[in-house]
Amino acid sequence: MAGRFFSFVGGDGGAWRVTRMAAITGQSLERVERLHVVEKRLESPPANAEWVLRGVTSYERYVTAAEQQQLRARQPPVGRPEATRAALIPIRKSDEWWQLPHDERRRIFEDRSAHIATGLRYLPAVARRLHHGYELGEPFDFLTWFEFAPGDAHAFEELVGELRRTEEWRFVIREVDVRVERD
Amino acid sequence: MAGRFFSFVGGDGGAWRVTRMAAITGQSLERVERLHVVEKRLESPPANAEWVLRGVTSYERYVTAAEQQQLRARQPPVGRPEATRAALIPIRKSDEWWQLPHDERRRIFEDRSAHIATGLRYLPAVARRLHHGYELGEPFDFLTWFEFAPGDAHAFEELVGELRRTEEWRFVIREVDVRVERD
Repeated sequence: MAGRFFSFVGGDGGAWRVTRMAAITGQSLERVERLHVVEKRLESPPANAEWVLRGVTSYERYVTAAEQQQLRARQPPVGRPEATRAALIPIRKSDEWWQLPHDERRRIFEDRSAHIATGLRYLPAVARRLHHGYELGEPFDFLTWFEFAPGDAHAFEELVGELRRTEEWRFVIREVDVRVERD
Repeated sequence: MAGRFFSFVGGDGGAWRVTRMAAITGQSLERVERLHVVEKRLESPPANAEWVLRGVTSYERYVTAAEQQQLRARQPPVGRPEATRAALIPIRKSDEWWQLPHDERRRIFEDRSAHIATGLRYLPAVARRLHHGYELGEPFDFLTWFEFAPGDAHAFEELVGELRRTEEWRFVIREVDVRVERD
């Protein structure tokens, strides 16, 4: 269960066509036509790419035993054939957030913002893979990748809308929302 | 408070003379004469170096508000002139550990192994800086760097002895103990 590296390459290649890019908070990313998801660490953007964002899967920072059990029972894998829509949502949190002790972050994250509980309500419709960038010195602390079928697009909008209205999101200082479709 | 990268270079250079190296669990590291602590990420070992271990400082994974307050009040900085002895202790934990939910890891780490409470008893004698390697794909999940004055060497032996007898340490699958002195 060692972490796995992923590089998200914004440019003119890759399986995913970009349908929408929006800066939710702070600076956006250069607008691109396509997104290439590469399962390794790329040191620099390939030719014809505008940007590359890197992250690594890792162990759970907040999840309890009961939550882990529910998540494992209900979360689908990434790569389902019917999941032809996806979103890459890179976020960065403030220094204030990162200096909080663990128990205060957990209280904000779950007790007051219901981050895990909210995600659970959208399972198994929305598959999710979280990549950490904080320890890599990346511009974004997290890259979350979501996949869903076209029929669940409305549910996905609800999910991101709910999360953005939480107390946790007051600590988000940069967020970009990249929507893609698979050919 | 972004993470800071450090590289620990084992070879024939650097401010720290190696006085002892021991494999506590699993494979050792190549025996070297000196240790160079570099505050950046080195991609490969410099000339004449046997190995380089990399880690990044990061946010607290387990500490509560009350513990953070005590730690901040009592922990000394790294680099005190009188702290001429140091130890680099790289460890790797098992997949079983990393797959545990956060609350179970916290219970083992502190409620049953008193990791933070034990460290607090040796403050301000023993300065400590923790570097994370898990997300970097490094061979060691943690590199802990300790500094102390010669008069506190016995206290430091007690500290590491106590930690190694804990339930938490049953999840350690590789540990090397590198002791050094500053000229």
